[in-house]
Amino acid sequence: MALIVQKYGGTSVGTTERIEKVAEKLIATREAGHDVVVVVSAMSGETNRLIELAKAINPRPPARELDVLVSTGEQVTIALLAMALEKRGCPARSYTGAQVRILTDSAYSKARIQDIDAKAIRKDLSEGRVVVVAGFQGVDETGAITTLGRGGSDTTAVALAAALKADECQIYTDVDGVYTTDPRVVDKARRLDRITFEEMLELASLGSKVLQIRAVEFAGKYQVPLRVLSTFEEGPGTLITLEEDNMEEPLISGIAFNRDEAKITVLGVPDKPGIAWTILGAVADANIEVDMIVQNISTEGLTDFTFTVHTNDYDRALEIVQKTATEMGAREVLGNSKIGKISLVGVGMRSHAGVASKMFRTLADEGINIQMISTSEIKISAVVEEKYLELGVRALHTAFGLDREEGTA
Amino acid sequence: MALIVQKYGGTSVGTTERIEKVAEKLIATREAGHDVVVVVSAMSGETNRLIELAKAINPRPPARELDVLVSTGEQVTIALLAMALEKRGCPARSYTGAQVRILTDSAYSKARIQDIDAKAIRKDLSEGRVVVVAGFQGVDETGAITTLGRGGSDTTAVALAAALKADECQIYTDVDGVYTTDPRVVDKARRLDRITFEEMLELASLGSKVLQIRAVEFAGKYQVPLRVLSTFEEGPGTLITLEEDNMEEPLISGIAFNRDEAKITVLGVPDKPGIAWTILGAVADANIEVDMIVQNISTEGLTDFTFTVHTNDYDRALEIVQKTATEMGAREVLGNSKIGKISLVGVGMRSHAGVASKMFRTLADEGINIQMISTSEIKISAVVEEKYLELGVRALHTAFGLDREEGTA
Repeated sequence: MALIVQKYGGTSVGTTERIEKVAEKLIATREAGHDVVVVVSAMSGETNRLIELAKAINPRPPARELDVLVSTGEQVTIALLAMALEKRGCPARSYTGAQVRILTDSAYSKARIQDIDAKAIRKDLSEGRVVVVAGFQGVDETGAITTLGRGGSDTTAVALAAALKADECQIYTDVDGVYTTDPRVVDKARRLDRITFEEMLELASLGSKVLQIRAVEFAGKYQVPLRVLSTFEEGPGTLITLEEDNMEEPLISGIAFNRDEAKITVLGVPDKPGIAWTILGAVADANIEVDMIVQNISTEGLTDFTFTVHTNDYDRALEIVQKTATEMGAREVLGNSKIGKISLVGVGMRSHAGVASKMFRTLADEGINIQMISTSEIKISAVVEEKYLELGVRALHTAFGLDREEGTA
Repeated sequence: MALIVQKYGGTSVGTTERIEKVAEKLIATREAGHDVVVVVSAMSGETNRLIELAKAINPRPPARELDVLVSTGEQVTIALLAMALEKRGCPARSYTGAQVRILTDSAYSKARIQDIDAKAIRKDLSEGRVVVVAGFQGVDETGAITTLGRGGSDTTAVALAAALKADECQIYTDVDGVYTTDPRVVDKARRLDRITFEEMLELASLGSKVLQIRAVEFAGKYQVPLRVLSTFEEGPGTLITLEEDNMEEPLISGIAFNRDEAKITVLGVPDKPGIAWTILGAVADANIEVDMIVQNISTEGLTDFTFTVHTNDYDRALEIVQKTATEMGAREVLGNSKIGKISLVGVGMRSHAGVASKMFRTLADEGINIQMISTSEIKISAVVEEKYLELGVRALHTAFGLDREEGTA
């Protein structure tokens, strides 16, 4: 008998019919002999409906009150799911974040979990109940309701699994697992049986929208085995786990890509200590997040400095940098929002030379020029012209042996 | 400077526009120099929407979970109202029942308030905030969310006013006060400036739907001055207060009436100890509430016994009584659901003889026969044929000097 925490997102509980289906899946898990704690999000559309109400009254609603408002979304779901379980003769009890006492800091709308009191849940489990917990929400030390921010229900599930020392945390979603790359772009994309936390983090931050990144960090930190499965199809999903010796270690596990970045280059900057700080400081002050940063070696006391930002921030960032560049006597500022980023991710990369050169050769063979490169221990990212993004992803997917074999699903 | 608790019902906060209007009324109260605590209901229609969701999943939802569900209705309103206040530069803070700690028993959906912790509210008031509290809800000792039942927001407001020793508890509603009788029936019905708690209790229980009866009981018990006002029109409303020596004491204050009752008479019952118990015990066992009960003096060892029930329970009650009557050897059972009850209410009645005779004469002058009479210290009720109900009410309204003078509002 295992203790399993399951999490169902907004789409999975989007109607009363779907809530009943979730109740049936939970009962099936119990009948397989497991204890179950389930974390649910607000019914899809509900959070937006509540935010619309708030905006109708106050375009800049106070954060404390916005959390009081949107936290009702999950509270509705927990009550309905508990009712669906009870109707089927399965004892159940619902808990809001405050009722569990999921203690967070007071950063409304983006609070972080500090502690979870698992006593009441353990008691309910020992008395044979399914425990239904509202995701995405907690309570601060003063008793104020907080929310963890969008997607925070994943974090709630992982944190509960850690606090309860659960055997597995299962995230039910509308995809059946983590793929080698986006199946909409590469039709031979393959579902991974396993992936490490680190790989998942790199894939998540690069745009795979399966799991919230903080949940993966949390799971890695507390070593909670995490599984992504489909609410609507049967299947084993993808297990996200620690790197193991006996784990099959492919060179790379997946290919992420992203067309939402734009790059800004400052040419001919006098190469003095502090240039990165001078250029990026002004950008950071404007609350613009920077992704890749590249600086080349200096020639004749001048250097070139390039970084990328989200395309939404491109115009604003360009304006700021042009001002800074003029002040520091740089030669020119160039910008380009028609770029795409391709990232290879894999723990296998650590112990294998040649991943980078193979990547570059594969892109060159397709006639794709690389504009920018950055690397981490388990990731290599290359920026290319946007129109070559999909071609590049497909070529690399084949070159690194990720394609699904013919005839398999 | 006074401390005022205001309560706004579902219609008063039914749209975001109306919530903004309430915010403006609160700010006006503050600008008049008062501290304000405001209790709000769910937006009109919201509680029913939530109950529909529950019924779609479970026709008999567990009471605990139903309270978790419906309590989200007021939680939405408190957040929105606090946002509306803050937008206008008025510092505000919202509280759910659990956050205040409105401690109740664990009778889900009909919980009773046991204690209120007013510390946090007092602190907020002293720091210049308007405190916005969710009506209708509380929390039990285990931390489970409870609700006080429909209309319970009035009770929340009165209980808070008592705990805070507020100077006045103002119930905003869609009528502008308590009337001498229903203005839809008697166009000369007059708004009362003042009425006593006892009178209000009799009027409320007899069908005037202005205030929830438990709230009036509570206000009387803790001597909280209670005022009923209109959300939508200006005016002083009606103050419900203790009987005072200098209070103008009209013979009667108001006339209530009710056409939702039916009467059942058992004729020729052997007059032995326990006959009332025998007849009514079986009715009570079926959870049928009995209103008026009349038993006449015995002649030749036989007596007649009559009582009234709600018309919804009439068929069931009649069936039960027929069975009991047969067992106890009564002669006959008669029933009549075409009756109406008229009740005169007034504390002045205590010290004035002749109210009853004036009532009976007035009805007789109109040719209305009285079928049944019962009295209490401040009330006389008469049952008449239903078709004479409105005629009787109008005649009595004039006879007892309640008519509004021509030309006044």
